[in-house]
Amino acid sequence: MTGFTPANPNFESRVRDSFARQQIMELIGARMGRVAPGEVEIELPYREDLTQQHGFFHGGITATIADSAGGYAAFTLFPADASVLTVEYKINLIAPAEGDRLTAVGRVIKPGRTLTLTEFEVFGHKDGRPRLCAKGLQTLMCLVGRADMPAAG
Amino acid sequence: MTGFTPANPNFESRVRDSFARQQIMELIGARMGRVAPGEVEIELPYREDLTQQHGFFHGGITATIADSAGGYAAFTLFPADASVLTVEYKINLIAPAEGDRLTAVGRVIKPGRTLTLTEFEVFGHKDGRPRLCAKGLQTLMCLVGRADMPAAG
Amino acid sequence: MTGFTPANPNFESRVRDSFARQQIMELIGARMGRVAPGEVEIELPYREDLTQQHGFFHGGITATIADSAGGYAAFTLFPADASVLTVEYKINLIAPAEGDRLTAVGRVIKPGRTLTLTEFEVFGHKDGRPRLCAKGLQTLMCLVGRADMPAAG
Amino acid sequence: MTGFTPANPNFESRVRDSFARQQIMELIGARMGRVAPGEVEIELPYREDLTQQHGFFHGGITATIADSAGGYAAFTLFPADASVLTVEYKINLIAPAEGDRLTAVGRVIKPGRTLTLTEFEVFGHKDGRPRLCAKGLQTLMCLVGRADMPAAG
Repeated sequence: MTGFTPANPNFESRVRDSFARQQIMELIGARMGRVAPGEVEIELPYREDLTQQHGFFHGGITATIADSAGGYAAFTLFPADASVLTVEYKINLIAPAEGDRLTAVGRVIKPGRTLTLTEFEVFGHKDGRPRLCAKGLQTLMCLVGRADMPAAG
Repeated sequence: MTGFTPANPNFESRVRDSFARQQIMELIGARMGRVAPGEVEIELPYREDLTQQHGFFHGGITATIADSAGGYAAFTLFPADASVLTVEYKINLIAPAEGDRLTAVGRVIKPGRTLTLTEFEVFGHKDGRPRLCAKGLQTLMCLVGRADMPAAG
Repeated sequence: MTGFTPANPNFESRVRDSFARQQIMELIGARMGRVAPGEVEIELPYREDLTQQHGFFHGGITATIADSAGGYAAFTLFPADASVLTVEYKINLIAPAEGDRLTAVGRVIKPGRTLTLTEFEVFGHKDGRPRLCAKGLQTLMCLVGRADMPAAG
Repeated sequence: MTGFTPANPNFESRVRDSFARQQIMELIGARMGRVAPGEVEIELPYREDLTQQHGFFHGGITATIADSAGGYAAFTLFPADASVLTVEYKINLIAPAEGDRLTAVGRVIKPGRTLTLTEFEVFGHKDGRPRLCAKGLQTLMCLVGRADMPAAG
């Protein structure tokens, strides 16, 4: 229970359809996880070609799934004829992004007619335990009248 | 001329070697461009699998090359036995990242013994003209005594 | 209960003493509230000379108490001979800062030997109810061997 | 010459009138300096009651004039019937804010119908020389139809 009421009852299929059209997600192997009103999770299994030289996920990849998790979290609360645009975000890379997979969770802090504020957290899963490796704040814009969604990221 | 004097005269080969070891850069097809004291450029040709659904580069990809351009810009000024770590950054996505290629330029604003501040700009090149599509500020950490460089991003 | 164990058992008096020496806090009339390991609250009663023209608290004043709340939250976990420095922060101004007082709460997200990440929230209290008006993420630096604390902000 | 053409030919008097109504600026003793299309400067003489304990300007005061300089820079390019609102900013505090005065310069990076991106820099003036002590990026919103300007900060 997230406490938000989505304007569009079909928010989940809209989010999943849009995510499926983001070709970059297929390239890196990211999957959409839980989709709830104001909250979205994206999962990314480890692959060697996503790393920097020490075997950790590259920070840009961490940001890619974080940005999309936050963007789609906002998108769950938008009207059916609106699309979402990332205005800006700030991300702190707290610990090495390591483990057999990453999960990014985006949550709406303050929904708005034009601008929505979200926060995101990214966890590395190693030895069965999640560990916070990145945290950020993100501003999204709601573009009404653009039914076809541009990428959340 | 950037006005900075690198502590390590071999800064350029160090940056290029490190970049060559970032597997993610090979996956997305990014190339290291100009490397000067306190300033680094990364280029990324357009590919369909780097996009969101409208044919623009995904924001996460924009951030990936921006993060590395800023990180390597800082790295050019580090001692020979130090590595670089991205502490955090903030990025504003100003315009669609479109064109036949992106270029990210990272520049050192304030070098420091422990922390270095950089700014980065990303341009989309369409019809032969660069257009600013993202701008950010980034904090990097210098880790002395770690000769083998962790990823800038 | 915040889950953090302070390195310095006298953390509370250190925080309150330092706050008392910040002359700007006296100028604007801010008071230190709750001080717990990794968490600090600052309160600011309404005054006309803290406003912009619509009677709301000025955004800079909101940031001033937010910055100090986050900085002192980090400071509660520092060793007795260390001081705190704000490296950077990002703040989103979500709603008008209005009411008979503001409260800023700073919380440590990830303590570290050199860098600590905190988040802060600022609430406006109107008609007896708190309303979130600003939220941010902040990076602090621990300067060991400087027993006399520079301002958290 | 800043390269921007203001929509409102009376942009300068609008900015100065609005600034004059911000009570907080009188409290801290800040003065509006140069006002050009897309660029604004604010000056703040040193006073003991603006400091933290080491005699430096408090970081919140640095942010206060930075926020207003950036906000008014955006405001110079707005239509005559619009007001300005700070959505968010990020600030890096690079060096101690010291000297007999601070100057904050705000500059428009990308004007927009709804959102405008600015950057700001704050300098401490000591022994007759400016020294960069803070730098940031800021997102502003243009609220059309609100002729009376809310505080830029």
